[in-house]
Amino acid sequence: MLKSPLQVARGKYVPKMPKILQGPVKLVEGDKTQSVADKEDIKRLFNNTYGMPILSLLPASKEKSYPAIKVAVVLSGGQAPGGHNVISGLYDGLKRCNLANRLYGFLGGPLGMVDNQIVELTEDMVYHYRNTGGFDIIGSGRIKLEEESQYDKVIENCKKININALVIIGGDDSNTNAAVLAEYFLKKKSGIQVIGVPKTIDGDLKNEVVETPFGFDTACKVYSGLIGNIQRDANSSKKYFHFIRLMGRSASHIALECALQTQPNIAIISEEVEQKNMSLDDVVKYITDIIMRRSIQGNNFGTVIIPEGLVEFIPAMKKLILELNDVLAKVKDKIDLIEGNRERRELVAKELSPESAEVFDSLPYSFANDLIIDRDPHGNVLVSKIETEKLLLDMVTLRIKEKKKAGDFKGKFSAQPHFFGYEGRCASPSNFDADYCYTLGFTASILISEGKTGYIASVKNMIKPAEEWLPGGAPITMMMNMEKRQGIMKPVIRKTLVDLKGKPFIELKEMRETWAMNTMYIYPGPIQYFGPPEVCDYSTQTLVLEKS
Amino acid sequence: MLKSPLQVARGKYVPKMPKILQGPVKLVEGDKTQSVADKEDIKRLFNNTYGMPILSLLPASKEKSYPAIKVAVVLSGGQAPGGHNVISGLYDGLKRCNLANRLYGFLGGPLGMVDNQIVELTEDMVYHYRNTGGFDIIGSGRIKLEEESQYDKVIENCKKININALVIIGGDDSNTNAAVLAEYFLKKKSGIQVIGVPKTIDGDLKNEVVETPFGFDTACKVYSGLIGNIQRDANSSKKYFHFIRLMGRSASHIALECALQTQPNIAIISEEVEQKNMSLDDVVKYITDIIMRRSIQGNNFGTVIIPEGLVEFIPAMKKLILELNDVLAKVKDKIDLIEGNRERRELVAKELSPESAEVFDSLPYSFANDLIIDRDPHGNVLVSKIETEKLLLDMVTLRIKEKKKAGDFKGKFSAQPHFFGYEGRCASPSNFDADYCYTLGFTASILISEGKTGYIASVKNMIKPAEEWLPGGAPITMMMNMEKRQGIMKPVIRKTLVDLKGKPFIELKEMRETWAMNTMYIYPGPIQYFGPPEVCDYSTQTLVLEKS
Repeated sequence: MLKSPLQVARGKYVPKMPKILQGPVKLVEGDKTQSVADKEDIKRLFNNTYGMPILSLLPASKEKSYPAIKVAVVLSGGQAPGGHNVISGLYDGLKRCNLANRLYGFLGGPLGMVDNQIVELTEDMVYHYRNTGGFDIIGSGRIKLEEESQYDKVIENCKKININALVIIGGDDSNTNAAVLAEYFLKKKSGIQVIGVPKTIDGDLKNEVVETPFGFDTACKVYSGLIGNIQRDANSSKKYFHFIRLMGRSASHIALECALQTQPNIAIISEEVEQKNMSLDDVVKYITDIIMRRSIQGNNFGTVIIPEGLVEFIPAMKKLILELNDVLAKVKDKIDLIEGNRERRELVAKELSPESAEVFDSLPYSFANDLIIDRDPHGNVLVSKIETEKLLLDMVTLRIKEKKKAGDFKGKFSAQPHFFGYEGRCASPSNFDADYCYTLGFTASILISEGKTGYIASVKNMIKPAEEWLPGGAPITMMMNMEKRQGIMKPVIRKTLVDLKGKPFIELKEMRETWAMNTMYIYPGPIQYFGPPEVCDYSTQTLVLEKS
Repeated sequence: MLKSPLQVARGKYVPKMPKILQGPVKLVEGDKTQSVADKEDIKRLFNNTYGMPILSLLPASKEKSYPAIKVAVVLSGGQAPGGHNVISGLYDGLKRCNLANRLYGFLGGPLGMVDNQIVELTEDMVYHYRNTGGFDIIGSGRIKLEEESQYDKVIENCKKININALVIIGGDDSNTNAAVLAEYFLKKKSGIQVIGVPKTIDGDLKNEVVETPFGFDTACKVYSGLIGNIQRDANSSKKYFHFIRLMGRSASHIALECALQTQPNIAIISEEVEQKNMSLDDVVKYITDIIMRRSIQGNNFGTVIIPEGLVEFIPAMKKLILELNDVLAKVKDKIDLIEGNRERRELVAKELSPESAEVFDSLPYSFANDLIIDRDPHGNVLVSKIETEKLLLDMVTLRIKEKKKAGDFKGKFSAQPHFFGYEGRCASPSNFDADYCYTLGFTASILISEGKTGYIASVKNMIKPAEEWLPGGAPITMMMNMEKRQGIMKPVIRKTLVDLKGKPFIELKEMRETWAMNTMYIYPGPIQYFGPPEVCDYSTQTLVLEKS
């Protein structure tokens, strides 16, 4: 395996651990828990795992001896920096609990548990992945297990080599799945435990129990570094507005965090757009207004940050997309026979409600065409493929042309689109994520050794240095409520969107007019691993503002 | 000025300097020089500055005293990491030559010299920009000075505050301009010296005199870090091919260097495409073939690196674009009245030569439309706006669909486009570029103090540690030849394209089949500033392979 100089040097990093985990520990039960909502339903669905107490790890007087066990880990969903360190921590923790413990990995995500694609993770194997990004040690996958027959298959496969426990590293859906499996395994008296670990760059798996999901820190730092570079470029050549879309599914946590780290001229927050019931045109007006005001000051350059999920938070667009899904399913066969884009658009527009037809008609043609052409196998509009940064750029360009014609804009306007996503999901974890993930994995090993199931590994007090972090566990059910999924009410972990009353958003709100009109860019630069602590160990503004 | 923790810490970095520059120096003349070609023409056009000797800086027994001077610096063309360090080095060097020396900066590029937009660069001002990316200290601009009236204006403006010398930091065009100004100023007996500094991320200002232009190292490291992250992602989820276009104007130096740093599955080198007289379709076939062969092994993922300038190196495309420029100029008015894309394409196709019409017809419609619609103010096709990564992605997708239909492809194919450019141009300079630029600036200060003009600051022996670097100067005219520009023969610095017989390309050629079929990605990670030397101080593969 050929490695870059950084990979080699970074391999030697020893993650910082909470002091508590450095010596003997004991597990202490705290308060009994309840789900965040729909208590009766969740209790009924999880009657073996509902209401369990919060668990804290505290220093003990002497090392406890645990029986030898076999644990299998699975990586689920989109990649996030630090996954490999969860596995390193889990491996080291298991070995500390009992040298005879063994760790396995199911390959390619949850489906590997059903298909019994499994490898043993040895010291030598884990060694090459310490402090590295990616999920490539065992791969990942998005397929959810939803059938009891699949759960039975997992039990069967685990029994084959006597796996005692599963560790599922994933986001809200995957941890929901962990809770379901834990409950099912108890009901079936399989003896197999399940522990979840909170992962997602999107930042939306965050609540009373999870201060921040792992990966969010690194991904935001990667994107902020790039945004900073682009801002420096904008401020040097002074001729472009950069429209930068950031990955992050629905919630705007990443866009918000990156805005706080870089102080761009404009940052759109989807949750606010929805709350204010803004139309696409309102967003375009908002951006254009700032561009025009900057131009009057002679500043024909700037940065605009756009969250990936924006379009679905614009009520009128959401409605249009829902209608399009129906219409496209209906006219599917007809549409594929039509050659001209204009004719296709006309056919679709006829089938839409008058309001949606108007919105559809207001879209740039190329974008409207893409909405019709790019469909998933079920005929649905591919929302994740919508290049919102280009859509807004096109619409703003058009609006500025009109203003120019009317004599209301005398400046210059030129823009560049960007999209950052894949660049951050598999970045080498920041010290924060490397330490956090290692601690999560180590904590999971103790929860398992103590016989716990249906818990998520949790670390608290994270705005303090790693030495003072507080490891423990929380029942997954306490994060759950009932939500409609494909028409059916299901128990799921509640996603956390940006809180418009929370400190991070308020900070943005207070500063954004200043940032819009003054060029006050901050340039975070690339993630550093070897420098002074103030450069290498700081965490996100979001975490600091939320927890202090 | 709010700064990130890294900006603050990096501000304290003291660039490493050649040992020679750490004590007293003397200037030693080497061989007389000649231009790389067209000796008679260049000699005639530069009869005051042609044939001057190479200059080397060597240790002297005692510090020399120089009269106090005023120097003005200008940043020209696209940004490159390290520009601010050239200015820091120039400032510190001038102060060492004579504490009474003063440094000024013309604002916004070469036009600032004509419009007399000038500021004094004080210690306090320079302080904030040490070791930072960007050209924002005085801004940059692309406008070239081509009229003698402009040159006279520059003399007039310099005379106003008694500027003794100009330092022009720029690429091949800007250094050509420096040579022209140096010659003109001598002819006019203005007494104003001109020194050039070799800048460009593109890597094409490289020759006997310039081992590498500054900025290339940092930009390639930024892009390679991102490519590595994407490769880790590809190798984790194993479901996407990533088509990554890299900035770098005509030459493929950046694409080649990034390929050597990251070992992608496919790397296209424009110079090879041209040499082999490949068509766009040949490139598509080449990519598709590797995708299909990877798929047979079960690897439905990978990376494809594409140089920005590719399209213009495909002979048939180059011809098409030249013809389109003529046709679009001709039918300009007519075309704007046509509403339908198909009708527009048909109108244009009719005017093209049969061969070009065939190529035009083979392009995906959306791309052909863009070629017609996106024109510069002169009506020309905007080559820099061509999203070659999407063009190839679309064409490969189509080809794979056909293969699937024919039963020749049984795998899955899904792809993501990326373009990296602005992310790297203003990145904080790597140690290599920070040291190199500081040394260039410092060297320029001595060349000026020694009364030289028409020289470019140069540093040699750069594959050795900075302490062993050899600073000096070379007459700009020795890099020049005659080339046709907009129909007229002009003296210009010869651009260096990728040498298909050079070691860097041969390395790629020898390895690429292995890299195509085996997943051997290297993950360089982000640029590090504080770690061990093997992580922080290495230079590009290109430089190492070319010079060792």
